Amino acid sequence: MSGNFRKKLHEIIYEADTPAGKLFDVVLLLLILISVVTVMLESVASIAAVYGEELNIIEWIVTIFFTIEYIARIASVKKPAAYIFSFYGVIDLLSTLPKYVDLLFPGLGFLLSIRALRLLRVFRILKLMHFVGASNQLLTALSKSRIKIAVFLFGVIILCVIMGTLMYIIEGPESGFVNIPISIYWTIVTLTTVGFGDITPVTPFGQFMSAVIMILGYGIIAVPTGLVTAQFMQDSTQKSTQVCRVCNADHHKDKAKYCYNCGNNLNK
Amino acid sequence: MSGNFRKKLHEIIYEADTPAGKLFDVVLLLLILISVVTVMLESVASIAAVYGEELNIIEWIVTIFFTIEYIARIASVKKPAAYIFSFYGVIDLLSTLPKYVDLLFPGLGFLLSIRALRLLRVFRILKLMHFVGASNQLLTALSKSRIKIAVFLFGVIILCVIMGTLMYIIEGPESGFVNIPISIYWTIVTLTTVGFGDITPVTPFGQFMSAVIMILGYGIIAVPTGLVTAQFMQDSTQKSTQVCRVCNADHHKDKAKYCYNCGNNLNK
Amino acid sequence: MSGNFRKKLHEIIYEADTPAGKLFDVVLLLLILISVVTVMLESVASIAAVYGEELNIIEWIVTIFFTIEYIARIASVKKPAAYIFSFYGVIDLLSTLPKYVDLLFPGLGFLLSIRALRLLRVFRILKLMHFVGASNQLLTALSKSRIKIAVFLFGVIILCVIMGTLMYIIEGPESGFVNIPISIYWTIVTLTTVGFGDITPVTPFGQFMSAVIMILGYGIIAVPTGLVTAQFMQDSTQKSTQVCRVCNADHHKDKAKYCYNCGNNLNK
Amino acid sequence: MSGNFRKKLHEIIYEADTPAGKLFDVVLLLLILISVVTVMLESVASIAAVYGEELNIIEWIVTIFFTIEYIARIASVKKPAAYIFSFYGVIDLLSTLPKYVDLLFPGLGFLLSIRALRLLRVFRILKLMHFVGASNQLLTALSKSRIKIAVFLFGVIILCVIMGTLMYIIEGPESGFVNIPISIYWTIVTLTTVGFGDITPVTPFGQFMSAVIMILGYGIIAVPTGLVTAQFMQDSTQKSTQVCRVCNADHHKDKAKYCYNCGNNLNK
Repeated sequence: MSGNFRKKLHEIIYEADTPAGKLFDVVLLLLILISVVTVMLESVASIAAVYGEELNIIEWIVTIFFTIEYIARIASVKKPAAYIFSFYGVIDLLSTLPKYVDLLFPGLGFLLSIRALRLLRVFRILKLMHFVGASNQLLTALSKSRIKIAVFLFGVIILCVIMGTLMYIIEGPESGFVNIPISIYWTIVTLTTVGFGDITPVTPFGQFMSAVIMILGYGIIAVPTGLVTAQFMQDSTQKSTQVCRVCNADHHKDKAKYCYNCGNNLNK
Repeated sequence: MSGNFRKKLHEIIYEADTPAGKLFDVVLLLLILISVVTVMLESVASIAAVYGEELNIIEWIVTIFFTIEYIARIASVKKPAAYIFSFYGVIDLLSTLPKYVDLLFPGLGFLLSIRALRLLRVFRILKLMHFVGASNQLLTALSKSRIKIAVFLFGVIILCVIMGTLMYIIEGPESGFVNIPISIYWTIVTLTTVGFGDITPVTPFGQFMSAVIMILGYGIIAVPTGLVTAQFMQDSTQKSTQVCRVCNADHHKDKAKYCYNCGNNLNK
Repeated sequence: MSGNFRKKLHEIIYEADTPAGKLFDVVLLLLILISVVTVMLESVASIAAVYGEELNIIEWIVTIFFTIEYIARIASVKKPAAYIFSFYGVIDLLSTLPKYVDLLFPGLGFLLSIRALRLLRVFRILKLMHFVGASNQLLTALSKSRIKIAVFLFGVIILCVIMGTLMYIIEGPESGFVNIPISIYWTIVTLTTVGFGDITPVTPFGQFMSAVIMILGYGIIAVPTGLVTAQFMQDSTQKSTQVCRVCNADHHKDKAKYCYNCGNNLNK
Repeated sequence: MSGNFRKKLHEIIYEADTPAGKLFDVVLLLLILISVVTVMLESVASIAAVYGEELNIIEWIVTIFFTIEYIARIASVKKPAAYIFSFYGVIDLLSTLPKYVDLLFPGLGFLLSIRALRLLRVFRILKLMHFVGASNQLLTALSKSRIKIAVFLFGVIILCVIMGTLMYIIEGPESGFVNIPISIYWTIVTLTTVGFGDITPVTPFGQFMSAVIMILGYGIIAVPTGLVTAQFMQDSTQKSTQVCRVCNADHHKDKAKYCYNCGNNLNK
């Protein structure tokens, strides 16, 4: 394969600057969406019974496209191994395989977990989203406060372990709190304000403890929110680090050309 | 129709500065509320059986008023087509039609979807709310952070697709996770901390995964909140309304003496 | 009654500066709590059957105290009518009456709504809380953003009316969406992420619409939070309005005595 | 015991600066996790039936380690009484006892509440977390706004008492609102947006009141969030760590040149 063709292919597949590159991304996005919808519909018994054949054909078309894309991706990069063993390389391979497994081992292909691998393609959409600036901003703010959020969630889990055990002792197996793991699961359901209602306390003291857990959950949701908000605020205010060389004023506006305090030209 | 009368009519219907214009808005608001309540009550079988006749009369009175209003609106504007095909023009027409459909095709009029069209009138209340400054402020803040919120919600949906498929594989049809769309629906119910409890996981691993989804949902609600809060804060701190008389730049810092764009002295 | 005694009484009952005034407030708080717990316990059939007599005696003691307090309050103020027809005056009277109604009309006294009037006393606790500075701060922030919150809640209710009607048309009476008011109730339950699960959508399209409502509710909770947070922030930063008379620097710390910029004494 | 050995032991157990001290902390953490998982698994009937013997052996190993640790802790501190009667001293003793109670009183040891004492060890993890800076920051922010949060939660509880009583009067025992405490429990479940669905209103007016409670709960969650966020923001902006050398005042403004308290030049 000529180096020029490979370079051109790389441009189309990996970049989004040229019209061909943009078209490729849009087609890819559409095919991923079609593929995801197909997998979903196939899982609905009534639809699979009527349109099973059509869904199978669509899935084969999509699979063939993804196979060609996978080969093209390997062919166009200089170090194929780096792509193959990257996160998206593995995703691309795994999400293409199910149909071939279906062909080679017809019985095995009906296994749910193998067919569902095709849904891994949605991760690709996340990659396409990286072109959207806003998503990077969100991820930056989340990533900056990730240690604090992790510490908070860890504290929440310890709280759930203690509260769950307490509820197990108070309510006991008769009320559905059959063992400690189930009780902890119930405490998480309650503290996060989800509240399925499949297990509910029946003793007065159990209901009192539940009320305490709920009010706790209602109150401490403020913590992650506060953390992320404070991070967003800092990111949006700390934009310009320029300091005026004449009067030493700082906190200039983002694209200021002149000092707001003394009128000095900041770019000189 | 004399131009003067048309101008007067326009003033009453479209503006709220004159006493007549204000009265018109209040009467309109009241009639919309009466209409909405009537539609609601008609849907309650026990009330419809007893007060059906009275509700029908009220609805006819309201419909006649709205018909007159619709004609007056067309008559008072210079370009009727612009109003007729605008969002509120279509709303006004559609919400007035049901009673006439009822008269012309008695059988058809009993169709729910046609009768419910009358409820579209509540949109008019939103239009009347535009006079309230606070609602514009809210909409501005929401609209400014709408791209970030959309990116966030998109990420949430992808997360729900992956988690929902995983739950479908783990739990299977016996626990109510009968197909992937239902499992995704359940994941949305759980992640948003709604938690109906119509479908609940029964396997230990399914319950563990649910706990993960819940804690995720409890944690990432911080993201939209943080976004909107940061936007509100920015809006409330950017108070300087000075505009540079040389280059017309605005959004100056609070105590700026010189224009950040051209260096002009703002206080002169 | 001597004017001196009345002044003393007023000091004890209405103020909390003297030891006697403080003691009075603590005793009042305790009696209110005892009264509230008594009313609650009386409503529990199993407890009322065993301890009915004791609860009755306690309630009489509390009622007599509140009667004396009510008379003392009227006696100690200069304009009794102002107290009698004030919010707390009405609360005090209504919460004292039930026991006497019980005595005069033994049959009527068993009516729930009359007995429950005694619980109105908890409002008094709110009044005692006014001495706590933090509660005033909270109320100020809430009160300042009350118009925006009202506009937001109004928008939420209109959204619920439209979505509820839509769900009624989609799901229909078979799924529990028996009429429009019930459907709107269900939409509020879902949008606020409460999710009882007593009514749940069963059609695929209904479940899709529910997912939309849930994600909406999950997203727009950011609005009131953002409003209140922005208000709190403003309140906590805008504390000192002093401006230095030497160098014109402002934004001084809350209890600053000297200018942070030039060292001038601010209180001179 | 030689003073040197005791000092060394103290270094390993109470500090995390030396390699031996770090290793001790990691081993302790692992043993706590093993112990917690063991207690959980023992409560699951199906697992206890098959692996009861193995779990018993693991629990004995862990108990022996914790016994040695407890003795070592007492031996290595200068004032053993201070440790023994401290929060963590009591936790350490109580969480070690259950197995010995099991040995001495075989019948009693099967009591849930005694076996569950072993779970108290998770508190130790919280102590190990103190080395993580982020957790201190979180606790500081929470602790600073604790009075405001307490006042808020107190207001919420009073609201729940009043609303719960109202719901009890409206719905009555037929709908599951059997007494006032249960109705208040239901109000807390609803206001905190948990929504189990074990008790749900059935009368139209009861459903209307529920909608009011839900919208209230949806709105006022903004308050604790706003409080904690404002606190986080203040903590992250108050960065100046200068302390005046004349009057020891701290928390100076970011670019303060003079002490706000005594007017001293801070830069000298």
